[in-house]
Amino acid sequence: MYITTKVLKIGYFGEPGSNAENAARGHFGFYEKSDELKVEYFSFATVEDILEALIQHEIDEAVVPIENSTEGLVTFSADALINGNGINVVGEIETRIRHNLIGVETIKEIEEIVSIPQALSQCRKNIKKLKPFVKISSSDSTSAAVRKVAENNDPKLAAIGPVSAFEIYKSQNSRLKILAENIQDIEKNQTRFLILGREDKKPTGNDRTSIVFGVEDKPGSLFHVLAILYANDVNMDHLSSRPLKTELGEYLFWVDIGGHKEDKDNRQALEKIANKTTFLKILGSYPKAE
Amino acid sequence: MYITTKVLKIGYFGEPGSNAENAARGHFGFYEKSDELKVEYFSFATVEDILEALIQHEIDEAVVPIENSTEGLVTFSADALINGNGINVVGEIETRIRHNLIGVETIKEIEEIVSIPQALSQCRKNIKKLKPFVKISSSDSTSAAVRKVAENNDPKLAAIGPVSAFEIYKSQNSRLKILAENIQDIEKNQTRFLILGREDKKPTGNDRTSIVFGVEDKPGSLFHVLAILYANDVNMDHLSSRPLKTELGEYLFWVDIGGHKEDKDNRQALEKIANKTTFLKILGSYPKAE
Repeated sequence: MYITTKVLKIGYFGEPGSNAENAARGHFGFYEKSDELKVEYFSFATVEDILEALIQHEIDEAVVPIENSTEGLVTFSADALINGNGINVVGEIETRIRHNLIGVETIKEIEEIVSIPQALSQCRKNIKKLKPFVKISSSDSTSAAVRKVAENNDPKLAAIGPVSAFEIYKSQNSRLKILAENIQDIEKNQTRFLILGREDKKPTGNDRTSIVFGVEDKPGSLFHVLAILYANDVNMDHLSSRPLKTELGEYLFWVDIGGHKEDKDNRQALEKIANKTTFLKILGSYPKAE
Repeated sequence: MYITTKVLKIGYFGEPGSNAENAARGHFGFYEKSDELKVEYFSFATVEDILEALIQHEIDEAVVPIENSTEGLVTFSADALINGNGINVVGEIETRIRHNLIGVETIKEIEEIVSIPQALSQCRKNIKKLKPFVKISSSDSTSAAVRKVAENNDPKLAAIGPVSAFEIYKSQNSRLKILAENIQDIEKNQTRFLILGREDKKPTGNDRTSIVFGVEDKPGSLFHVLAILYANDVNMDHLSSRPLKTELGEYLFWVDIGGHKEDKDNRQALEKIANKTTFLKILGSYPKAE
């Protein structure tokens, strides 16, 4: 007998050990149980690089963070998707994010804590409790912070990062330890990731649709769009604004609505919204995270 | 004769040489021309520290960034104001922000560029043009980045920062130079700062009011608030959402409206909004920036 193994190539944002890689493995790991399908994961430094790799068919799908329960919209992902073309949102993943203090000695010796600004914000109060006068510095990802601590091997330096990054760099520096677990200020710290792909997803009966639109700079223009959603019984799950990047105070809006773009209510609402906005982009319809 | 000099104490966000200090000096410098009033400036590492200093009467007013034309809402300032108490927004300042590449040799030697994430984002395309494969790293402020370059004195390291920071650290390291001017991707890069104080501002006839509110998690709840503004002829200048920090998808809204909170239309609208929201906080009414 002859078995052909298909390879599914999944991109993710950040360095190996990042929360996006964990989310991707949690979601696509299911497929790895089959002998006929192998999943390979690829690390990307920016969301723009991910979009380019998708367009070039170098990867099949990709996972990027879009929203955190403490920090809100992940603006670099939102901006890349707003400006990108030829990409669909094909799914979403919601995961609990746990932050850990990782160092090479004990909490006592620490004089500086490094991590990405988002993680540092999510642990601000607990850092103040653990080390009131510690110096805070920024890294480009949580895994980059853990790598820095493993490489420097200095008791004065600690990182905030996930267990997955700890496990990767523990093999390079055996002194590396988790000095405090679950140090996020809000216990139920969650991040929502979007799965990006090239094709449209068919309706499943429990979907969500992400759209972006601009409105004219005149009174009531956002109100008129929300009125269309309300009149057509379309539920709005999320609304964020992003600057148009031209003038101060000029914005466009990212809105998630319940249902698939092919659902009758949504189709009617989206047609009317297209006439009431300066531009409308449907980023994709996809099954809601469970 | 006996002259009593009054001292006005102004706090600002960031290290000396920061854009907030520039904005503060541009605004309050006017008062320094008088012999009877002296203005002193104080640097603060966080917006929370500024709020505490205002409440303790250690400073009279303070300047914090709230919105940038490329990067949108400054979330750490918004969150601090949402959670703070006893503070009023008493003014706003809009300034052009110019970024410069600052190093100790020439562009050719640079292997790493350091700055705060916001400044790096605002110069992303130009950095790619100047140095396609350069390493990017984060600092806590633009002035901290310039300080690092002055201290390290390494031709491989450059910072993105304002001329004011360059001037401060040039006196410590005479090799420091501006290698490229105005490297923000969007020429007209603007930041809006809020002036914070303790007292209410009286109407001037050309005011703006900032409010924050939460809505019930049910269909149309944001729509109903915007409908009240529209029905009362109240102009909405800005709308941003911030996470409630409890569950994914739970948000509150920051809205700027035209006019003073004591104006008749606004007073009526705000009364109705108070009944349609889970909470409503009026951050302050203040003269619009010119």
